[in-house]
Amino acid sequence: MAPATLAVAAEAKQNSDLRVEPEFWWADMANSELQLMLHGHHISDFTPVIVDKLTNHKPHREGGITILKVENTDNPNYLFITLDLSNAKPQTFDLALTKAGKSVQSFSYTLLERVADSAMRQGFSNKDVIYLITPDRFVNGDTNNDNQADMSEQVNRKDVNGRHGGDIKGIENSLDYLADLGVTQLWINPLLENNQAKYSYHGYSTTDHYRIDPRFGSNADYRQLAVSAKEKGIGIIKDIVVNHIGSEHWWMKDLPSSSWINGKKSANDNASVKFTTHRRTTVQDPYATQSDHSQFVDGWFVDSMPDLNQQDPLLATYLIQNSIWWVEYARLSGIREDTYSYADKKFLSIWSKAIMSEYPNFNIVGEEWTSNPITVSYWQAGKRNKDGYISYLPSLMDFPLYKVMLKAFNQHEGWDTGLISLYEMLANDVVYADPSKLVLFEGNHDTNRLYSLMNEDLDLFKMVITYTLMSNRIPQLFYGTEILMTSPKAGRHDGTVRGDFPGGWNTDKVSAITGIGLSQEQEDAQDFIKTLLNFRKSSSAIHSGKLRHYVPIDGVYVYFRFNDDETVMVIINKNDKPVSLATRRFHTQLEGVNLGVNVLTKERVQLNTSANAQSKIHLPPRGVLVLSLELEH
Amino acid sequence: MAPATLAVAAEAKQNSDLRVEPEFWWADMANSELQLMLHGHHISDFTPVIVDKLTNHKPHREGGITILKVENTDNPNYLFITLDLSNAKPQTFDLALTKAGKSVQSFSYTLLERVADSAMRQGFSNKDVIYLITPDRFVNGDTNNDNQADMSEQVNRKDVNGRHGGDIKGIENSLDYLADLGVTQLWINPLLENNQAKYSYHGYSTTDHYRIDPRFGSNADYRQLAVSAKEKGIGIIKDIVVNHIGSEHWWMKDLPSSSWINGKKSANDNASVKFTTHRRTTVQDPYATQSDHSQFVDGWFVDSMPDLNQQDPLLATYLIQNSIWWVEYARLSGIREDTYSYADKKFLSIWSKAIMSEYPNFNIVGEEWTSNPITVSYWQAGKRNKDGYISYLPSLMDFPLYKVMLKAFNQHEGWDTGLISLYEMLANDVVYADPSKLVLFEGNHDTNRLYSLMNEDLDLFKMVITYTLMSNRIPQLFYGTEILMTSPKAGRHDGTVRGDFPGGWNTDKVSAITGIGLSQEQEDAQDFIKTLLNFRKSSSAIHSGKLRHYVPIDGVYVYFRFNDDETVMVIINKNDKPVSLATRRFHTQLEGVNLGVNVLTKERVQLNTSANAQSKIHLPPRGVLVLSLELEH
Repeated sequence: MAPATLAVAAEAKQNSDLRVEPEFWWADMANSELQLMLHGHHISDFTPVIVDKLTNHKPHREGGITILKVENTDNPNYLFITLDLSNAKPQTFDLALTKAGKSVQSFSYTLLERVADSAMRQGFSNKDVIYLITPDRFVNGDTNNDNQADMSEQVNRKDVNGRHGGDIKGIENSLDYLADLGVTQLWINPLLENNQAKYSYHGYSTTDHYRIDPRFGSNADYRQLAVSAKEKGIGIIKDIVVNHIGSEHWWMKDLPSSSWINGKKSANDNASVKFTTHRRTTVQDPYATQSDHSQFVDGWFVDSMPDLNQQDPLLATYLIQNSIWWVEYARLSGIREDTYSYADKKFLSIWSKAIMSEYPNFNIVGEEWTSNPITVSYWQAGKRNKDGYISYLPSLMDFPLYKVMLKAFNQHEGWDTGLISLYEMLANDVVYADPSKLVLFEGNHDTNRLYSLMNEDLDLFKMVITYTLMSNRIPQLFYGTEILMTSPKAGRHDGTVRGDFPGGWNTDKVSAITGIGLSQEQEDAQDFIKTLLNFRKSSSAIHSGKLRHYVPIDGVYVYFRFNDDETVMVIINKNDKPVSLATRRFHTQLEGVNLGVNVLTKERVQLNTSANAQSKIHLPPRGVLVLSLELEH
Repeated sequence: MAPATLAVAAEAKQNSDLRVEPEFWWADMANSELQLMLHGHHISDFTPVIVDKLTNHKPHREGGITILKVENTDNPNYLFITLDLSNAKPQTFDLALTKAGKSVQSFSYTLLERVADSAMRQGFSNKDVIYLITPDRFVNGDTNNDNQADMSEQVNRKDVNGRHGGDIKGIENSLDYLADLGVTQLWINPLLENNQAKYSYHGYSTTDHYRIDPRFGSNADYRQLAVSAKEKGIGIIKDIVVNHIGSEHWWMKDLPSSSWINGKKSANDNASVKFTTHRRTTVQDPYATQSDHSQFVDGWFVDSMPDLNQQDPLLATYLIQNSIWWVEYARLSGIREDTYSYADKKFLSIWSKAIMSEYPNFNIVGEEWTSNPITVSYWQAGKRNKDGYISYLPSLMDFPLYKVMLKAFNQHEGWDTGLISLYEMLANDVVYADPSKLVLFEGNHDTNRLYSLMNEDLDLFKMVITYTLMSNRIPQLFYGTEILMTSPKAGRHDGTVRGDFPGGWNTDKVSAITGIGLSQEQEDAQDFIKTLLNFRKSSSAIHSGKLRHYVPIDGVYVYFRFNDDETVMVIINKNDKPVSLATRRFHTQLEGVNLGVNVLTKERVQLNTSANAQSKIHLPPRGVLVLSLELEH
């Protein structure tokens, strides 16, 4: 049967504002299906057809592309086309929208060639140190993009909750500083368009899933940042939100379907918003009711953040493709997924599986904000959950250990207070499929500043930093921690916590980057972190060594990270006075060692470490000793 | 080869104080091996031989008994003989101790016939309510046994830490009271001989593993108690201590071997005592050191409690046989094992397996005193532990839930305080192999008194009692709770907590048993508990029904226990004012129900429970409602 000629139907109206997402895709992805979302006036009236450019005949077969499925929703302005790309090479092809066999409108679509080793890219790992940046508050590298005609909120650096002008260019300009500090991964708070009237700077109210907010830069700028960073050994971790969107998202003016948003059937639906209960145990509690679970996951976060219904299969695929699109496009090395448990759990399983199937060595870290390790452990790949739930999420933020760590260092030492709580907390690691893949942080954009939480006690601050960097976790720092940025100690103070990084603005008198104007304490902290980060880079014992720790006694906590090649001994002395620590207790770990190098001072420490030796290690008051031990040969 | 005649060797000295343990045993046990411990002057010089009474010939074969193994230790005064009883019928046989082929001394040994269904006895279960008795403080049924010539400590009721005279006879006399109250199991603090100079009343310093302390009664009295109790539907749970003994144990005068007691090589060894660190996480912490673990399990509890080394295989077998001996002899329905994790973990696995192999339907509950469910879960049979450790212990005391329960009812209701903490705690049940087999208690001999901990608030007291009795656990009450016995609220006050049960002494002016002199509040509490206990007896939904609970809202917590036949709705209202609770939220649980019976008042409550109904349940202020729901037919 000869293909019919595709005549242009002049009588049907073209959509001048046809929107196709994703804008382009790649050939040779592991998942060969691609779902296109088309938005345009009554677009569901049309039948999509792939057009052969040369012959203008359908169906097009030479490109190896077929239409698998065409789906409508209850909103006629949307059309979803699923393509089979399993035999498609990189190419540009035309897709026609037809009515009664005649083409009304057509558009070109491109399948790009993937960069080499894209699929096998290495995600962030225990070798890395992640540095979290709130981009609006870090460095303003391009003042020309501060305000944008089509964006509601304008720059106002005097408003603690307003936009301050930081951008991608600013991060790119700071790569030397960051590489020098020893950072190897950047987690950047969301950069996608957030065209909200206020509080837009934090980025968690996406209004366009395929566009970098122009006040931060362009999509190309973002990719360029990743390329430049990679040259300096730094990867980029994207902050992704699948749970909710911003109320100014373009979808909200014309909802793709009545099941797209929880609690809102259409753009004009004024149903009163139901907020999430934040009762996260309902997700995994064997005795919880479905209604309580639904009120947790289906409720809105705040009224400016409509809650997405990821049970809608079209939306689910949209979100999965969007995540993969950015990984592929911007050459990412990781994803941080916001408000993890608030999204539909079946979707989260599919989402994490889809991404990890495309990129088997990739990494994703989810946010489950609770002090309970059992709750966190539910979400990690490899966990045998009692309800049979299977996750593919490699990593989670270790909120439980973070909370105990702060308490352990802040509390007085007592029978069950202080360091013992940190020691005992680690016994709970048995609930995790792989505790070493969790991300331990000293702070993030939602917590008060570490230096403040430690009562501006530099000694305690250093203890927490050391623990964060030398534990059996993937460590994460928050920008500005290295120069002791402060905040109030209790309550939420988002705008202050996410304060401007000194030196990020031309008018700044103090600069963390050049060091101008830093106090002695700030310089000390910066040097301390730099030293540990750079030591950490080449320490295989810290990256992947075993952990062995000793019950803290009299305010001194000792632990070892070790493998066949290297042993690192970490000693934390919380006492106000120096301590002479007998090495005998540690002889099984110290066997064959006679020399240690103090990582912080580079001094050599002689050790006599046999079981019967009377050797002692001198510990300064309120100090940390990190010894890189050398085996006797 | 004809068996040689066993001539009596007149020249060798007989042991006038030969001790053989166990004193007797049973034929047809699942484990057909029996280890006899013989103690006597230089007894290891002898060779044991089984004597055929009729022929006086060896070896004896007709009885089906063979000597498998004879073992000595480094103390010549002990001899361990392992017999093979696999072909042995009930019988009495003689065992001769020979030297150079001549019998120096012989003794008779009896294998009893087991009572019918001994092996398949039913242990305590979710159908039961356990009532804990501190026997010295409960009822003094026989004042004649109060003081004993061969026991150090005499009765002194004025000494809060002294002996007060309660005994087995007193418990037996109280069986009608206990059965009427609705109790179905008695856990009695240790009754074994505790011939210590002081603090002997609590019973945790065993000085003879095969003898009931004569101040409590005889071995026969103990068995008679079990027989009498069983007639009233009450089982007996023995409190067993395998971790340590009393410093006045007869072993301590002549230690069976240098490896019998941790840290003490012989009776004359004055090595300074090392105490346990109480750092229990070292047992299961994947990062803990062996030395820290040893200091926890091998250290002594207090200096009057020498720590047993259960790694010694002779001791291990001794302890296992001793536990089984008492189950078989005294017809027990359960064991409560003291200070569980303080004993050697391999031994605990063997011990629990041996008992559960003898009695597959039996029950044992271990004490692991921690607020961490992960730590507790490690010990339960069926748990897949990361380190591969396998336990056969069916049950554990639910200290974590106990602690949260007290907090939940005492705290003000807030976002993360009060009932929500109890609700969220149950989500942690996923860490247990079988949470329903845990024992939840409202108090025990080591905790302060519930009524005091609830600030003598009878309403709160009733809430805790209801929760304890209606949760998906095996419930346990502490004697005297039913009549609001009090204690200080903080710190340890053992002697006061374990106060005399009113009416247990002839001179008592108040009696919980007759009701004479009880206050209105005490009568109210006693009636309340009696009503719930007796309802509970026939409620299959409470015994084995599922649990479904709803997020507490505004100080009201609702949960259901249900199976195909029965639904029980428990409503706890912590508000100071009455509440009209809309039933709509619970419609999936209430479907088909139109009538409820208030278990406490027997009143009938009409319910309209369809999803759209406006039905409400009236809740009194600070009250508990237990509704037995009837399905519409």
